[in-house]
Amino acid sequence: MSLTVVGSVAFDGLETPFGKREKLLGGAATHFSLSASFFTEVRVIGVVGNDFTQTEWDVFKRHHINTEDIEIVKSGKTFFWRGRYDYDMNTAHTIDTQLNVFEKFKPKPSEASKNSRLLFLANILPSLQKEVREQSNAEFVAMDTMNFWISSMKDSVIETIKVVDCVIINDAEARQLADEPSLVKAARKIMKLGDLKALVIKRGEYGAALFTGDNYFAIPAYPLESVFDPTGAGDTFAGGFMGYLASQKKIDEAAMRRAMIYGSVMASFNVEQFGTERVDTLDYPEINARFRAFKQMTHFEEIPFERTNTTNV
Amino acid sequence: MSLTVVGSVAFDGLETPFGKREKLLGGAATHFSLSASFFTEVRVIGVVGNDFTQTEWDVFKRHHINTEDIEIVKSGKTFFWRGRYDYDMNTAHTIDTQLNVFEKFKPKPSEASKNSRLLFLANILPSLQKEVREQSNAEFVAMDTMNFWISSMKDSVIETIKVVDCVIINDAEARQLADEPSLVKAARKIMKLGDLKALVIKRGEYGAALFTGDNYFAIPAYPLESVFDPTGAGDTFAGGFMGYLASQKKIDEAAMRRAMIYGSVMASFNVEQFGTERVDTLDYPEINARFRAFKQMTHFEEIPFERTNTTNV
Repeated sequence: MSLTVVGSVAFDGLETPFGKREKLLGGAATHFSLSASFFTEVRVIGVVGNDFTQTEWDVFKRHHINTEDIEIVKSGKTFFWRGRYDYDMNTAHTIDTQLNVFEKFKPKPSEASKNSRLLFLANILPSLQKEVREQSNAEFVAMDTMNFWISSMKDSVIETIKVVDCVIINDAEARQLADEPSLVKAARKIMKLGDLKALVIKRGEYGAALFTGDNYFAIPAYPLESVFDPTGAGDTFAGGFMGYLASQKKIDEAAMRRAMIYGSVMASFNVEQFGTERVDTLDYPEINARFRAFKQMTHFEEIPFERTNTTNV
Repeated sequence: MSLTVVGSVAFDGLETPFGKREKLLGGAATHFSLSASFFTEVRVIGVVGNDFTQTEWDVFKRHHINTEDIEIVKSGKTFFWRGRYDYDMNTAHTIDTQLNVFEKFKPKPSEASKNSRLLFLANILPSLQKEVREQSNAEFVAMDTMNFWISSMKDSVIETIKVVDCVIINDAEARQLADEPSLVKAARKIMKLGDLKALVIKRGEYGAALFTGDNYFAIPAYPLESVFDPTGAGDTFAGGFMGYLASQKKIDEAAMRRAMIYGSVMASFNVEQFGTERVDTLDYPEINARFRAFKQMTHFEEIPFERTNTTNV
């Protein structure tokens, strides 16, 4: 297999200005794998409970996502999160978190998962991320994390950063992790925490930035009139980014730049409907059309300025 | 003359984490004209008091900025603003504002100013902006405004928008003006307030966006490790944008996109030192090097995704 992700598979309850849903298929590994499945073969390492039905399995099946490493715990229920978005749609307010079977989640990667060419450590306990990474033979490993782990166990987060190639986090997390308000300085500090080949900073409606060695690449977000449900946008971005990289023979700067675009493309679709609904029904012409839109909206001609009229200089 | 700006010429007092200055040359028209002077011939319409010395005039002179339309009021003092920036450098906290001679400022454009090809209405009372615009024969007119006018006299701001070709404001002002949290929806609403050819949204450390008809263009900001003094960055952006447009025969989409880059280039230099210090000493190789850096940091190859391995789709 080409790409393995370890992370949460969950049910989400949502309240937004656009409506309410009681039980949507969600979780970081779900959003990630669905997005990545358009570009490569994906395997998920996770855990679900006895409330996970054929309807949910069918979503994975439809996208040929390998679920052999998703453990089913018959005695418990699937991780459940309920949240609310207000008018500005920028911040998720947590109403309820029930870890359920996820509380004692102990990833058990199969041989096939261990031999995956790429590995993504979605947001779980940093020590578990490290364990999975250490069992893997992957050529390129990326990780996410979150404010909760950074404030409660920063050392453990840094230990995991030391064993990966790429960190994919949002700007607030980057500033918190580096304890540095300047994003550029924060990025340089994070790059030095380990032996990172790349650092991806997600900036929501402002786009995303890629730091690689001495290079810098930045893109705006796709200009959506309405954000319907931002849940999973970050994981969908990471899925597009890692999935595209898995489809490429060489994981170099040029491939990573295109991967940033494909990540942004997938995330822009994700927020257009509730949960996984929009990405579930995507097709390649839609993906490529939006990729072209990114090129169109960032293109300018490189013409250096020359003062032909020298009367006042 | 090619470009005329009407707006404030001022002294600024500044406190930042990087130091303190008692009296710096500042004001919107100052930052704008200095920036624009690298690209075209500029005229300033403004007013100063008896405390304006040869040192200040020399800054304009050095950059061949025409100051014939800057009125000198011998009985008063120049507009003075004192502000403070805290650690994050994002928000200016006003400590003191002394309007002085600016309080009764009544722009008196000369014939030369009226016949300028481009006109920029920097942030002054909207009715004064409108008066200057109505006396002008300019082919392309742009305006700025601010939260204070939008909240206290929105109708007057809209009346001015109706007589210009381009609005250049920051994202918070755009949201406030349109009473709409979605920036894209806000932009569409503002475009319809008048007969705008273009709307430029300045997003500070996140870059800038250009709306023109059905087109959208967005760029990240130059990745600076430290912002030394953000005062005047928006006016410096506008000066680069309008100055570059004035240097071009045709003010079309392609020229406006490059103007967005030159505006960003100039703004990125402006914040590197106090007040006008950095832009005052700029040269063309520096400007063009940073223009090239913008191309480098936004470039990616346009390669649509094709699934060559169809084993799982």
